[in-house]
Amino acid sequence: MIVEGKSMRTLWWEARPWPMQGAVHMIDQRLLPWSLEILCFTSPEEVAEAIRNMTVRGAGAIGVAGAFGMALAFCRAVVERRNEGIEAARVLLAGTRPTAQNLFYGIREVLEAGAPWIQQDLEAARDAAVARACALADADAEACRRIGTLGMELLPQRARVSTHCNAGWLAFVDWGSALSPVYSAVRAGKDVFVYVDETRPRGQGARLTAWELVQEGIEHAVITDGGVASELRRGRVDVVLVGADRIAANGDVANKVGTYPLALAARAAGVPFYVAAPASTFAPLTPDGDAIPIEARAQDEVLYVEGPDDAGILRRVRVVAPGATAMNPAFDVTPAALITGIITEHGIHAASREGLAGLGASGRSV
Amino acid sequence: MIVEGKSMRTLWWEARPWPMQGAVHMIDQRLLPWSLEILCFTSPEEVAEAIRNMTVRGAGAIGVAGAFGMALAFCRAVVERRNEGIEAARVLLAGTRPTAQNLFYGIREVLEAGAPWIQQDLEAARDAAVARACALADADAEACRRIGTLGMELLPQRARVSTHCNAGWLAFVDWGSALSPVYSAVRAGKDVFVYVDETRPRGQGARLTAWELVQEGIEHAVITDGGVASELRRGRVDVVLVGADRIAANGDVANKVGTYPLALAARAAGVPFYVAAPASTFAPLTPDGDAIPIEARAQDEVLYVEGPDDAGILRRVRVVAPGATAMNPAFDVTPAALITGIITEHGIHAASREGLAGLGASGRSV
Repeated sequence: MIVEGKSMRTLWWEARPWPMQGAVHMIDQRLLPWSLEILCFTSPEEVAEAIRNMTVRGAGAIGVAGAFGMALAFCRAVVERRNEGIEAARVLLAGTRPTAQNLFYGIREVLEAGAPWIQQDLEAARDAAVARACALADADAEACRRIGTLGMELLPQRARVSTHCNAGWLAFVDWGSALSPVYSAVRAGKDVFVYVDETRPRGQGARLTAWELVQEGIEHAVITDGGVASELRRGRVDVVLVGADRIAANGDVANKVGTYPLALAARAAGVPFYVAAPASTFAPLTPDGDAIPIEARAQDEVLYVEGPDDAGILRRVRVVAPGATAMNPAFDVTPAALITGIITEHGIHAASREGLAGLGASGRSV
Repeated sequence: MIVEGKSMRTLWWEARPWPMQGAVHMIDQRLLPWSLEILCFTSPEEVAEAIRNMTVRGAGAIGVAGAFGMALAFCRAVVERRNEGIEAARVLLAGTRPTAQNLFYGIREVLEAGAPWIQQDLEAARDAAVARACALADADAEACRRIGTLGMELLPQRARVSTHCNAGWLAFVDWGSALSPVYSAVRAGKDVFVYVDETRPRGQGARLTAWELVQEGIEHAVITDGGVASELRRGRVDVVLVGADRIAANGDVANKVGTYPLALAARAAGVPFYVAAPASTFAPLTPDGDAIPIEARAQDEVLYVEGPDDAGILRRVRVVAPGATAMNPAFDVTPAALITGIITEHGIHAASREGLAGLGASGRSV
């Protein structure tokens, strides 16, 4: 995507001279849309913390961050001349966020690439790991681009789309999943309006999706998470497009909390509800939605809101009564029965065991 | 209700000596839960502005505010020895908020009480108007108390209740509608846990309902508006109780935006969904939900959030990307088919023309 006139990805690898060998750059998404800052990390521990604190977030982006984090572990193994840190990095990175499948996918892919040489030739292991991590980043961007090409066919010439959270390019390396069909459709001359759920508590819709759409000049309205159901009921939405953090074997989908009630509202209105995600999101060893661990995040994300005041100074304000208790499930599960179809880079699949059968190879657990 | 050790209502009338004759006191709900301040108004214009800017909000409370505002207009007519200001006050007050039925009910009741004397004896008109306004306030409190007594029978001994917005005593003169059964059940020794939807954009759940429950020592969790659907799906909620801003003749209900998706989630989970409201909320001349005007409020309520910073200073912060557009429908309509029953002071009614037939007398339009 183009940001401030420059072509940019959400995160990328930079080759560095010995002894660093490599570094991971990423947009600090905690500061968006208020400021665009790029952070640079050179250890798997820093990358793990960046995933945990949501410097980087979004299914594909944290998958590639996990891959890059593992690549950094291989780099360090070469310097240290020992490989014990690689397994420690795997455990650390895999423990950062429990729900998103892409994270486990990215970690495993890099580990498997380096594994054949890990005992005898750490430099060869590093080269294979780094190459695989960079290939995964490119594959993520290409899968998302392909999702856009396939998904745009679902949008009428004048399309009113509803989406939740941020499944745009910031959630991936480039293009995004749910927003990729929107970007493709607009480039193809279609007229698209997007209802953007603000997506409490962290406001990824209000902050990130809205920012992407403003950058692209696409017409939109940010709406509270409870608000779009009535727009659906009144026939004002043509299609719902959301992303996914994990797709279970039976087609149940874990995604940002609030996706399930959106699917209920779409069903009640007879509006198609599509999930868009690269095949790396598919978890064939997760039998169904009940088997997906749902991350419970800190109460403070509900109790406090952060944003710039009128002078542009970032401030945290309390929005819940003093003494009150909050709960903060980060994801929810949309049952397959509510999903019209799942758009991957390979096609548009029925949300069922049969429909997803062909995706199995890419999605083993780490 | 008891606040800081004192028995208090949300708003009340104070008799004053000539020439003021009366004043309206109300809790400034814009400052809750951060501080408890009582405002005092002596003109219908001030009361209208207080309704419009949500100093006072909640179906019953704005109904009584409308009644008190009309009573102030009758008081001023006595001083001015002319009655033209009464009709102007009616128009002004009725134009403040378009959705809530109680507002129109309160205004009309006071107008009709004073009308017989309005041409020949303004003091008698004033006395009748003030008496009717005060009687309406008492009737609102009594209706809500009765809703609690009737509604608590719907709660099991250990009850997990979900509610939306604030339909507690702050939304009425006392007791509240949806929360009244909770308060009654707790006083009767039942064990109640309340899921409190934060209720974006103005956070009436997070600020007001949570504050009420903290004051009452009732166990609760504030949850994002998109979060409770999964709690319903997982069988963690026994009953949903919400208030109403207007009940149409066919049983469709307008309430705070976000109520309709909550009803969908309750239905999908097989959990009973009750609306609690005094009969004054019933609008027999509104045939169905499509005929209820839905107030569109300012974008800024979505774009900005206000709350105290860590030093306790109230600040407004932006939560939506610069340049983005928002929409802010304040209410939505829940179709009668999703409503298990409507609890009024007269009983528990089916959400249908037949079920609500007996309530007709009280609900004409202003």
